[in-house]
Amino acid sequence: MFIEKLGEFGLIKRFKERLNNDSSVVRDSGDDCAVLRLDRKMYQLFTCDMLVEGVDFTSRDNPYFIGRKALAVSISDIAACGGIPRYAVVSLGLPRNLTVNKVDKIAGGIFDLAAKYRINIVGGDISKASRIVIDVSMLGVVEKTRLCLRSKARRGDIIFVSGALGGSLHGKHLTFEPRIKESRFLVEHFKINSMIDISDGLAQDLWHILEESGVSAVLYESLIPINKEASGINSALYNGEDFELLFTVSRAEAKKISAAKRYRFFPIGEVVSGGFGLSMVDRNNRERKIIPGGYRHF
Amino acid sequence: MFIEKLGEFGLIKRFKERLNNDSSVVRDSGDDCAVLRLDRKMYQLFTCDMLVEGVDFTSRDNPYFIGRKALAVSISDIAACGGIPRYAVVSLGLPRNLTVNKVDKIAGGIFDLAAKYRINIVGGDISKASRIVIDVSMLGVVEKTRLCLRSKARRGDIIFVSGALGGSLHGKHLTFEPRIKESRFLVEHFKINSMIDISDGLAQDLWHILEESGVSAVLYESLIPINKEASGINSALYNGEDFELLFTVSRAEAKKISAAKRYRFFPIGEVVSGGFGLSMVDRNNRERKIIPGGYRHF
Repeated sequence: MFIEKLGEFGLIKRFKERLNNDSSVVRDSGDDCAVLRLDRKMYQLFTCDMLVEGVDFTSRDNPYFIGRKALAVSISDIAACGGIPRYAVVSLGLPRNLTVNKVDKIAGGIFDLAAKYRINIVGGDISKASRIVIDVSMLGVVEKTRLCLRSKARRGDIIFVSGALGGSLHGKHLTFEPRIKESRFLVEHFKINSMIDISDGLAQDLWHILEESGVSAVLYESLIPINKEASGINSALYNGEDFELLFTVSRAEAKKISAAKRYRFFPIGEVVSGGFGLSMVDRNNRERKIIPGGYRHF
Repeated sequence: MFIEKLGEFGLIKRFKERLNNDSSVVRDSGDDCAVLRLDRKMYQLFTCDMLVEGVDFTSRDNPYFIGRKALAVSISDIAACGGIPRYAVVSLGLPRNLTVNKVDKIAGGIFDLAAKYRINIVGGDISKASRIVIDVSMLGVVEKTRLCLRSKARRGDIIFVSGALGGSLHGKHLTFEPRIKESRFLVEHFKINSMIDISDGLAQDLWHILEESGVSAVLYESLIPINKEASGINSALYNGEDFELLFTVSRAEAKKISAAKRYRFFPIGEVVSGGFGLSMVDRNNRERKIIPGGYRHF
């Protein structure tokens, strides 16, 4: 049997069954970052993301933004857990006929974004490869009281996103701003019950929250903010790589968040009990089931 | 200009010039691991290594040992700093027509070695790729007083290796045992001035120590332990991926290490002052210069 038959999530499930970790590991899978015990007040966050030429970017994309994206996706994972990014190591697989100029631009994208978020680039590895591969591993910290997981959504929670969705393939997947400031604003001022960043698409990533939390959800089409470049609601539901935050809070917190002036967050639905999964009320007030879907590697 | 003209080390030097880290980073480049402040007693070690099909292994190699090697090279980096490996994340780039059976074997090699050294596998990422790519990032800890760097070799130090060198391409590069036990024995009982693991070859990796420490060295050919599979002294000097420890200690410590019963370490030369670099006294008692060299990706 080939892995494409098992699928990306089938493969991940297969690996998860083999995990056998000690009690210093608070969370090892099923979230945006691993969560490790650090000290009395803080957890350490640990995440990795691999970008491959021809899959996550093309050889014609601006190399500065290829490098920038490689770091940004890991920063976004730290943001999804409510944390602060601190250190990164970068492994590069490079074809030998790559120009120094292009590598300099990739590095420029990495180092500029690292400087912006005060992330220390502390190491790396370089290997020959037939196509460009960039793997970034990142460490962050988060106060124990502010850690956000996918698994704590509660019945009655209001579901929010941090910005417009869809159409990321028109360029946003390379140029997006990881939502660190928004995430820290949220965890410092409100009680966030669950959070994830949208990398696979709204339907798929909301489904991750529902599965991990054992709840269901209803979305309202008219409330979902859609990018101008996006082709419509299906693009918002199923296109990946928006890298907006998707989070749930109690009704009381939702009111406070909506009243806050610093950042705008968009309520798009609510968490309900029961096992029916995910549905959406459309503009004609008809409710329909939403099948989880989005970008899959296999 | 293509990167193959600049070379692997030219490329690394280019990146190093852009590093701009805060005071929590004790060591960010020029060593086997990054060294980060952790608490009063301990440093955190952080390292990454990327293995690429067709470069670090072939499609005909035993997949169990491909996975095992991916973890082992990072464990070896932690050992080179005198530390204890604790956590790893694994990024996999996989061709879609790979069999589930082969992926299971790769995972088996990773998980079995992790279990042996009590390393928690806490996360990962899976991407489509045209050839297998495995990138492991690892965290470890080391007591501040036991941290080993490349940069502290001193004139008069005796140079040791932990085992026979050369011929790693005959299989040892896939099956080697990372020298964690030997490293911990050394740092717990002796004062180790400098240490590195041999991944590029004895000549190249000793050169790293000399450069970082600002010293020179003389090797004695008759003292260098050579693998039975190796083709001779040049194989020991220039073949990479032995993954033995290479370290320097004072004469007083050297005597104690040679008298210790638990592990055997081989004295192979001494550190001298001056800027002439590296030389070797051959079996005819003639001294000749050794040019640093070994495996290069570009």
